Parts: sequence; structure tokens; C-alpha cells
Amino acid sequence: MSPESAFIESLRAFARDPAARGLIDDAAVLEVGGETLVLTHDMIAEGVHYLPDDPPADVAWKLVAVNLSDLAAKGARPLGVLLGFTLGDQAWDRAFAEGLGAALAGFGLRLLGGDTISAPARVLGLTAIGRAAGPVPSRAGARPGDQLWVSGTIGDAGAGLKALRGEIGRSDALIERYRNPRPRLEAGARLAPLVGAMMDVSDGLLIDAARMAAASGCGIEIALDTVPLSDAFLAACGEARLEAATAGDDYELLFAAAPERVPALLALAEELGLPLTRIGACVPGAGLTLSEAGAQVPLPPSLGFEHGARGTNG
Amino acid sequence: MSPESAFIESLRAFARDPAARGLIDDAAVLEVGGETLVLTHDMIAEGVHYLPDDPPADVAWKLVAVNLSDLAAKGARPLGVLLGFTLGDQAWDRAFAEGLGAALAGFGLRLLGGDTISAPARVLGLTAIGRAAGPVPSRAGARPGDQLWVSGTIGDAGAGLKALRGEIGRSDALIERYRNPRPRLEAGARLAPLVGAMMDVSDGLLIDAARMAAASGCGIEIALDTVPLSDAFLAACGEARLEAATAGDDYELLFAAAPERVPALLALAEELGLPLTRIGACVPGAGLTLSEAGAQVPLPPSLGFEHGARGTNG
Repeated sequence: MSPESAFIESLRAFARDPAARGLIDDAAVLEVGGETLVLTHDMIAEGVHYLPDDPPADVAWKLVAVNLSDLAAKGARPLGVLLGFTLGDQAWDRAFAEGLGAALAGFGLRLLGGDTISAPARVLGLTAIGRAAGPVPSRAGARPGDQLWVSGTIGDAGAGLKALRGEIGRSDALIERYRNPRPRLEAGARLAPLVGAMMDVSDGLLIDAARMAAASGCGIEIALDTVPLSDAFLAACGEARLEAATAGDDYELLFAAAPERVPALLALAEELGLPLTRIGACVPGAGLTLSEAGAQVPLPPSLGFEHGARGTNG
Repeated sequence: MSPESAFIESLRAFARDPAARGLIDDAAVLEVGGETLVLTHDMIAEGVHYLPDDPPADVAWKLVAVNLSDLAAKGARPLGVLLGFTLGDQAWDRAFAEGLGAALAGFGLRLLGGDTISAPARVLGLTAIGRAAGPVPSRAGARPGDQLWVSGTIGDAGAGLKALRGEIGRSDALIERYRNPRPRLEAGARLAPLVGAMMDVSDGLLIDAARMAAASGCGIEIALDTVPLSDAFLAACGEARLEAATAGDDYELLFAAAPERVPALLALAEELGLPLTRIGACVPGAGLTLSEAGAQVPLPPSLGFEHGARGTNG
């Protein structure tokens, strides 16, 4: 068991309330005054989740986006955020504040409060609170017979990081996906009533699908050749689907839906102008299996990033 | 302007929503579905807010208590918390988790969620969400003519820290106040309808009173000889009221109330078994003035701790 898993396991005993969803979901769900509130808190650390020379405005954007992506996965629309900030170099702080302002304006969001402290290292936290208009899908609701779907395209952010590092040719479209991810808030709110399970893809499509399978107590099969790639990705990396599916930072939505939802899902994709692609199925059993052109292929050694120790993507 | 003030100033433009209360209050106030929610987020860093060899369970308790104290000051009762945790030494992590469980149980509170990451330093964050049954007092509501009051006794935690350091004789009562502060949740909820302004005393009675004066646009006079001291404090430190009033970590409630509230306040003190003591007055003008035995005395060079850079108390 990883240190992170061991720690979360030790907390689970104090999180028996249904609102905590056993600490396996992306967010907490709290019923207050007939409204359904969704709360999430994500942290990022310098040198772990971003690099010291990353533009501060991008760090601010990402901090907001990763939290809003958790709300999107629960079908919630954001009400506001609280910032936990560690002071450091003042020029960096100022640029971060400007970037945060731009991100909040971009998402039509309000800063409600937070805390500012001195600390020996930069660790930034954000709490986002949102409201769900209907049922809140968990990541544990996938059932054998459901189809597995994903929004948008996969692997763009990972390729954007490679482009920034000079490992592949420069692509502004891919770098934009890495630096300024767009959480799928509208899609999440519209998908919530149609799905059995939903979560965001943050650490890699494969590792996140494996987590959905584990939480749901079923198996998940992914047909690698159906994983949607963007034109920009194809131009830069070719058909490197396994790489795309383990790269992380996509902030797309992964969801399981019953087959009878297909017409509604396709109509929604059309209306939103956002691809929704069937990439696999939920099956009896456990764990993740991969196929390519109909034949099973072995899982790669790493399915994506572990939350606690993200290596390459900042 | 301190780096902290400059940073908060730069954020203020994005926090124009009334819920943010101009970022000068202890917590955000959000109206949802006819309910009034109060949200707060506080962080603590190793080596800044606590020492590496402080017992992890005490650190957990303090992290919970400082946030609940912010809710208490707004008259809110807690609904749950989200934890932001940075992994480190596994034995420390385990002891922290146990301590957190004890603190949550002690406050009848539920863990709703959060995030666990790897980071180069320990920076812990907690978001607490609560519900207020009535009006939510701000720290900006004090008016000339109001009386200034404080709950409990002042200076015990600061003296407890001195006892731990061997600077004064050992006193379990004082050490307990330092290690396991008890946020005044019941008192806060009961006081909220009676006060014009309320905040918690976390950085020192004098600096927090000065903040209330600044936020309220009035002056505050404190009669130092009326600041309530515990028997344990008097036994250990004598009548060191100036020391008590600048020591911080009290987690008592400081509030301004109109003179006609006196009977209700005294009745409440009686009912709760908690001293509520009048220590001064709100006056026209600005800033903090101190008196002793009716004569004005100069302000000490430091009124307490600045949030961003707490020196001695961990």
C-alpha cells in the first residue's frame, strides 16, 4: 500500500458520513436546505505539480481548473472558491494574483476567502464549492453492461508538456491544453442525469478508469484504438494512443452509461460541439483490460500518475 | 505594506461579491437554498505555526480548532471539514490521522474529503463549512458607543507555550490551553444575535482588537486591568496583563455589543458557565488605545502576531 493509500485508509474511519462518499470520490456531497452542495479541495506543490519556472498565471489557472474539473465530474456548477496561499517571491505572488483574477473571471467565479501564510515551500490549495441541480454521479456507480465514454480528446496536455520541453515539435494548441485546461463544467452538468458513474481524467485515462472499476466493483475494458485523439496530437505524435492514455492532465470526463443512453449522449455531443466517444465497456469481474483491433494487449507498467507523487507533469 | 497585506490587496478586486466580505472577515458567508453557510480555510506550516517535534495529534487538533474558532466567531455550527495534507514521515502521518480522528470525534464533526499530496515541506490546510441559524456578525460592525467584551480568559495558551519551553514553571492547565484549544462554538452561536461585531482572538487580543477597530472604522479603548486572567495564569505569571494581551492562540471571542445587551450577556455567561468580560469600549476616531487604572498607557511595540509570519508560537 502506498503512503498515500495508507494515510487515506487511516482517515476512512472518520469519514463514515454519506457526504464523504468513503473518501473515494472526487468531491464531497452535502445536502443543505434542499440544495445539493459539492465541495472539493486540491493542492499543488512547487517542484511536484508544477515547476519553479512555470508562469505563475498558468499555475493559478491550473489550481482553479483542477478543482473545477472535480465539480464538473459531479455535475455541479461552481459557486465560489477559497484560496490557501503560501507567500514567496513578491513578483511571483503578484503575477499569481493577476493570473488568479484572470482565471476567476474566465470561469465567472468569485473568490470567497482563504488564508495566506509564510511557509518553507510553496504549497497552494484551493477549495471549490458548487451546486448540483440534480443527482450527483459517483465514480462507484458503473455496472456491468454499461458503456464507457470519454469527452473531448485525450493526451493533448501530455503532448503539450513534451512540446514545452522540446521533446516534440512546438504546437501552440497542445501547449494551450497543458497550460490552460478547460474543465468540462457545462458538459458535466448536462451529463450528470444520463450517467451511472462519472469522474474526471486527471492522472491518466487508464489509471482513472482502473479507479472507476475498483470503486464500482466491476471490470472495465478499453478498446485502445477508439481513444479519441486531436488533429494536433496526431500531427505531433502520430497514433501514440497508449502514451495519450497514460499522460494525465486531460481534465476530460470519463463516464459509464447504460446503452439506452446512446441517442441522448450523441444529441448532447452535437449540441455542445464536444466529442463524446465510446471507448469501452463495463464488465463483470475486476480490473482494467486493454484491447487493440479486437485483441487483448498487456497493460503498460504505469497506468498514469499517483496523486501523491506526480513526476513529470510539473 | 507587508507582503501578506499586498497580496491580499491584489486579490480584493476579484472578491467583490458580498459573500467574500471584502476579504477582511474570518470567513465567507454564502446564502444557499435559504440557509446561511459559513466557510473558512486556514493553513499551518511546520516550523512556522508548529514545531517539528510538536506531537502530531496536537497539530491535528490545532488545525481543526483554529478553523472551528473562525466558525464560532461567525455564530456558525460546523457541518464538516475537508483536509489538505502533505505526506511525510509515515509514523508522523499515522499519529496525525489518529489525532485528527480524536479531534473530529471531540467536536462531533465529519471529515468530508480533501487532498493528499507529496510536497517538499509540511503545509497543512483545512476547510471548515458551517451553518448559521441567524445573522452572521462581521468584524466590521463595531460602532462608537458599543462596549467591547471577551469570552473566557486571555493569555493562557501563551503561558502554556512558555511552560513547555521551561521559561516558567510547569502548569498542565496552561499547557492544555496551548495544545488543545477549545473553540467557543456554543458561545459564538448564542452571542451572534446579541453583538454588533465579533471575531476570534487568535493572534493576540491587542492586534485582533486593532483589526476590529480598523475594519469597523472606529476607535477601540481597552482597559488593561479588566482583561480576564485565569487562576493558573496568575499563579504562573502574576498580573502580566500586557503579556497576556499580546500572546495569541487564545481562541476566545472578542465582540462589540450595545450597552442594552448587558443583561442578556450576563445571563448567557451564567447559563454557559463561561466568563464574558467587558474590557473596553468602541469610540469615535480610529486605532487602539490602552489604559491602566484609568490612565492611558503606551501601546507595546508588538500587539501580537502577524498572520503570515508567526514567530514564537510554533
